[in-house]
Amino acid sequence: MTPPTRSATRIAHVGIALPAIDAQLPFYRDVLGLDTVPVSDSDGARIVALDADGSLVELLEPAGADSPIGRFVAKRGPGIHHICFAVDNLEAVMAKCRASGVELVDQVPRIGAEGKRIAFLHPRSTGGILIELTES
Amino acid sequence: MTPPTRSATRIAHVGIALPAIDAQLPFYRDVLGLDTVPVSDSDGARIVALDADGSLVELLEPAGADSPIGRFVAKRGPGIHHICFAVDNLEAVMAKCRASGVELVDQVPRIGAEGKRIAFLHPRSTGGILIELTES
Repeated sequence: MTPPTRSATRIAHVGIALPAIDAQLPFYRDVLGLDTVPVSDSDGARIVALDADGSLVELLEPAGADSPIGRFVAKRGPGIHHICFAVDNLEAVMAKCRASGVELVDQVPRIGAEGKRIAFLHPRSTGGILIELTES
Repeated sequence: MTPPTRSATRIAHVGIALPAIDAQLPFYRDVLGLDTVPVSDSDGARIVALDADGSLVELLEPAGADSPIGRFVAKRGPGIHHICFAVDNLEAVMAKCRASGVELVDQVPRIGAEGKRIAFLHPRSTGGILIELTES
């Protein structure tokens, strides 16, 4: 019997919460040399995404104080907000989460900023870390 | 004249600060299917690294309360602590940082957990985000 191959899970993006994107964009674009790529705004945040060799850095600016990013920045200050992993089979990994007691925020995949299907996991079941899953 | 090529900057790793690695390791290893890779402990932290298609997820557990990770967890709770970008030419990017007013914590590269030369940037000059640079 062939042993099961391991998932080719990779980092799809890292979301960085900032009060104002424009003040920090020159660092990522001009110092690190990352190119911006088009993504949609999402979840009450303005998003500027930059490509780092296939993984994105997403700069997230709250559209309002009462958005998830606005509340994060108000409570904790600017910081790295979440990490998104791209997985080969989104439904299979969501099922693994359920089976191992990891709570899903999104019970059914929804469309994220990159136009792909995503699901967030609840940080109370991932040790306080906000994790997003998306399909490869 | 050939236009300058852009840097092949990529995400080397994302550091996640947790009070206890062992409670969260099964999620990254068994649910996400990431393989652990050997790295050295560093900066007063126990580190378990997992490979996500060439980028690492580094789980960081404070060795003591008075370590950088210990202070981060005490002040902010578990969270994503820093992001490390691998760049083609570390000295050139460090020089770009200096030229654009981004403060370096490490004026001269030192050896990081992966055994490569690294330098941290000061979060007060990157909008509150802790960023590490390493060589590709």
